[in-house]
Amino acid sequence: MTPYRLDQLDLDRQLRNQAVLMRQPEAHLRRLIETSGRLEQFSVRAAGMLLDYSRQRLDEQTRALLFAIEERLSLRERFGRMCAGAMLNKTEQRAVLHTAARAFSDDPLRVDDQDVMPEIRRVRDQIKTFSKRVHNGEITGSTGKPFQHVVVIGIGGSYLGTEFVSTALAAYADKKISLHFLANVDIHNFGAVAAAIDPETTLWVVISKSYTTAETAANANQAEHFMRARGLDPMRHTVTVTSKGSPGDDPEHGALQTFHMFDFIGGRYSVTSAVGGVPLSLLLGYERFEAFLKGAREMDLHALNAPVDQNLPLIAALISVWNTTYLGYQQQAIIPYASPLAKLAPHIQQLNMESNGKGADIQGQLLPQPAGTVIFGEPGTNAQHSFFQLAHQGRPFPIDFIGVRTPQYNQYTARSKGVTNHQELWANLLAQARALAIGQENSADRARHFDGNRPSSTLVLEDLGPENIGRLLSFYEARTVYEGFIWGINSFDQFGVELGKKVADTLRDHMARKNDDPEHAFNGVDTISKAYLEMLFGEVND
Amino acid sequence: MTPYRLDQLDLDRQLRNQAVLMRQPEAHLRRLIETSGRLEQFSVRAAGMLLDYSRQRLDEQTRALLFAIEERLSLRERFGRMCAGAMLNKTEQRAVLHTAARAFSDDPLRVDDQDVMPEIRRVRDQIKTFSKRVHNGEITGSTGKPFQHVVVIGIGGSYLGTEFVSTALAAYADKKISLHFLANVDIHNFGAVAAAIDPETTLWVVISKSYTTAETAANANQAEHFMRARGLDPMRHTVTVTSKGSPGDDPEHGALQTFHMFDFIGGRYSVTSAVGGVPLSLLLGYERFEAFLKGAREMDLHALNAPVDQNLPLIAALISVWNTTYLGYQQQAIIPYASPLAKLAPHIQQLNMESNGKGADIQGQLLPQPAGTVIFGEPGTNAQHSFFQLAHQGRPFPIDFIGVRTPQYNQYTARSKGVTNHQELWANLLAQARALAIGQENSADRARHFDGNRPSSTLVLEDLGPENIGRLLSFYEARTVYEGFIWGINSFDQFGVELGKKVADTLRDHMARKNDDPEHAFNGVDTISKAYLEMLFGEVND
Repeated sequence: MTPYRLDQLDLDRQLRNQAVLMRQPEAHLRRLIETSGRLEQFSVRAAGMLLDYSRQRLDEQTRALLFAIEERLSLRERFGRMCAGAMLNKTEQRAVLHTAARAFSDDPLRVDDQDVMPEIRRVRDQIKTFSKRVHNGEITGSTGKPFQHVVVIGIGGSYLGTEFVSTALAAYADKKISLHFLANVDIHNFGAVAAAIDPETTLWVVISKSYTTAETAANANQAEHFMRARGLDPMRHTVTVTSKGSPGDDPEHGALQTFHMFDFIGGRYSVTSAVGGVPLSLLLGYERFEAFLKGAREMDLHALNAPVDQNLPLIAALISVWNTTYLGYQQQAIIPYASPLAKLAPHIQQLNMESNGKGADIQGQLLPQPAGTVIFGEPGTNAQHSFFQLAHQGRPFPIDFIGVRTPQYNQYTARSKGVTNHQELWANLLAQARALAIGQENSADRARHFDGNRPSSTLVLEDLGPENIGRLLSFYEARTVYEGFIWGINSFDQFGVELGKKVADTLRDHMARKNDDPEHAFNGVDTISKAYLEMLFGEVND
Repeated sequence: MTPYRLDQLDLDRQLRNQAVLMRQPEAHLRRLIETSGRLEQFSVRAAGMLLDYSRQRLDEQTRALLFAIEERLSLRERFGRMCAGAMLNKTEQRAVLHTAARAFSDDPLRVDDQDVMPEIRRVRDQIKTFSKRVHNGEITGSTGKPFQHVVVIGIGGSYLGTEFVSTALAAYADKKISLHFLANVDIHNFGAVAAAIDPETTLWVVISKSYTTAETAANANQAEHFMRARGLDPMRHTVTVTSKGSPGDDPEHGALQTFHMFDFIGGRYSVTSAVGGVPLSLLLGYERFEAFLKGAREMDLHALNAPVDQNLPLIAALISVWNTTYLGYQQQAIIPYASPLAKLAPHIQQLNMESNGKGADIQGQLLPQPAGTVIFGEPGTNAQHSFFQLAHQGRPFPIDFIGVRTPQYNQYTARSKGVTNHQELWANLLAQARALAIGQENSADRARHFDGNRPSSTLVLEDLGPENIGRLLSFYEARTVYEGFIWGINSFDQFGVELGKKVADTLRDHMARKNDDPEHAFNGVDTISKAYLEMLFGEVND
């Protein structure tokens, strides 16, 4: 059998041995970073980004072992097969082609002997035309007023990527459109959105591949009632983003327009498809959305073509596996020193944890240990004043620091302590990465003792323009995919969410019956859930 | 020596043995929750809340051992000493009196022989008067217009608690005030706030205990330049919340008013002091802020007085320690099924990780293992569509589910699949807690196999009014304090953030010198940081 998981390779044993060595005092980061040429040798500049991994807990020997994984597990070859349309999502018998969403060449790309590129181009053209017509006032609401609010109804992969990108590029939102998100079925979400919009000038973008997602269906239903109650024609205020043939694609359904999703692009990888394309083009203009795609494309090609020692997302994936599997860190933080990236961590949290939080491998074998890591993060310097106490003195975890050379705002240049705010921000980023690595011995006052040896990488972007946001997105997507290849899992299914849905279906059914019949007694419901249902329906005095 | 840490007790060994037993198949949650009367026996209703811990991995024997910790470590007695003004923050020689901020009795409370209550009451009265005068237009900006925007300049403990409470109670914000936060020194934050406000109708609330926090000073400086550039008098547009005698308390400094902070209330515990009081009273009215305080007060008294088997935060703390120290979970998620609680997890992330992420104990001994856990979370059902894949099939972690019986909005009642949105939300909460616990065996299709045995608690609030937000806040504060008592650490200092500050001071100084002198060569800076400084100052071609 050809090995397809790292733990099937002899390299696994060698890496375990290496991890023992790297726990010795002489391998403390304090020492590693002082070796000559450390930064030059442990950093890569490519695709418009710098990845500095000089403060990761690895030496040349460790790195050589990690880099050897690439060939032994044919990582880039598998990435290439993914981009070429192979059925990498085996459990669902689907190709994995989010990279095609940002391809601009005329080369055909066949899935089941059919070239998918014409459809992808067609949807992009539809988005371009539609957003322009909204911006120039050709398309209006049913009372003739131009659209000024866009509400995205979608959850998970139909929400978090767009939230990340729209937050990152908010400074470029010059189309007089306010973007709102209605993800949670929680009525508080609907209430807050309803209070913030002007119904006459609101366009609702309903996003669901199957068009059966419970939350999205419930919110779309609320929106429809809301519009009708205000004398508006829902058909004139709604577009859908969904699969061909889904209930939301039905012309009877009545939407201004439908933009197609494809089953070869998974939800959490879909922000470069119509899922992100429609709202982001409305917010920013199609040209900026296309620039974002082109940045992502550049990083895709880099991830595919660059040799392992130059390959940013592949190196990042190998480090992630090293930290998780061999050094035993169970969580990773993403700390952008850039407020516009405030929603990067929640997006990557979904992308990575849903992709790689798996218990079985790609062949259907249970893994010896469940895969995946907990991803969390907040922007710096905020995080320094929140949970960095734990990072420095409590349980350690690896960190991705992200810095940006040129900020989106340059008109506020007042200095404090001799530096601009942007310089202050950088001083902190650099100081944290260093302090975490070196620590500070204090045997007299243990409350002021720092072990150090806390690993981090630093990613540097030139600016926060659409291209770089695209590169950053693709970097984390490719990193996630490569991690999955190394762990030998399917990063593209999510059967782990099904059991909860099934149990919810049963409980919802009981609630619906109770709504219709006050005598309904919840028979068959487990005793704990039943007690809650009785509480919710007011049958218990408390 | 009197034991002051759990691992000094014989109970520690017994709990370790118990953890081995609880890992056996017969102790699987699937079985535990089926025992008769499980919910009644493993839940407590008090102080307006229900804590259901029936789906935690503990049986009666485990619980008895955990409850025995209370007496052995005098936990409630220590909590009582805290509330009475003892110097529990030993490293900083300070009392710990956030509970006094919500005390309303006339009983004196002495610190260093001085009754602190008159000052606390005086500040509350000042907040009440000031907010009323802003609301009725007596206090205006320098051009005579009433205030409509409040910008809170503050970071960490001067920010996250207020963000949590103001988000939770946004539905009650009827004073025609928009609240903005300027925490990060990142100029993107300032730029975004500047773009969102009307300078003439903006009041800036500068919050810093020492008034020397670098981020807050830099942002206050930007704000002052911003106002002057628009012909406004900064003095008429600024209030400060700071310690008596700090630079921000200087009458020369020039603010409309100063509200005092006290060194016996730590930043992350300060939202019930003037830190939260000033902005929250401006946003919601002082009466609602006081209702919030009274809810917190009720939970404080419960945490102090209720016997261990009835004590919500104490039980939650014991479970947290059980999960972390004995079952080995390194992270905990907080998943409120209530969008208004979206900022609860970021606040508790700070509160808990900064309090308990420690390497040394209260006596200055290094701990055998660093303390603390990673706290993260997003509202449900959003989280289900994000990282719950990992929760179900990847690396497990304990979860606090939070449910609310009555939502803030009740005008949107359209049903989908026979249920309201609020019912759909509850069906999901109940389903997740159950599915995580029971799992589902599938030996034929391992991608659809669920181990189960994932622990969770469920907290239920009656509604999201100010009182319950106060109770919830105090619940997590008291839980954090009790955890710290059990681990034997000082939950009130944060020396772990000092090393990074010190390194940043050096780097900032080099940047300032470079700003003044282009020839400055960064001599003495470590080689990695130096390379970054050269990059930032454009000395490297790349």
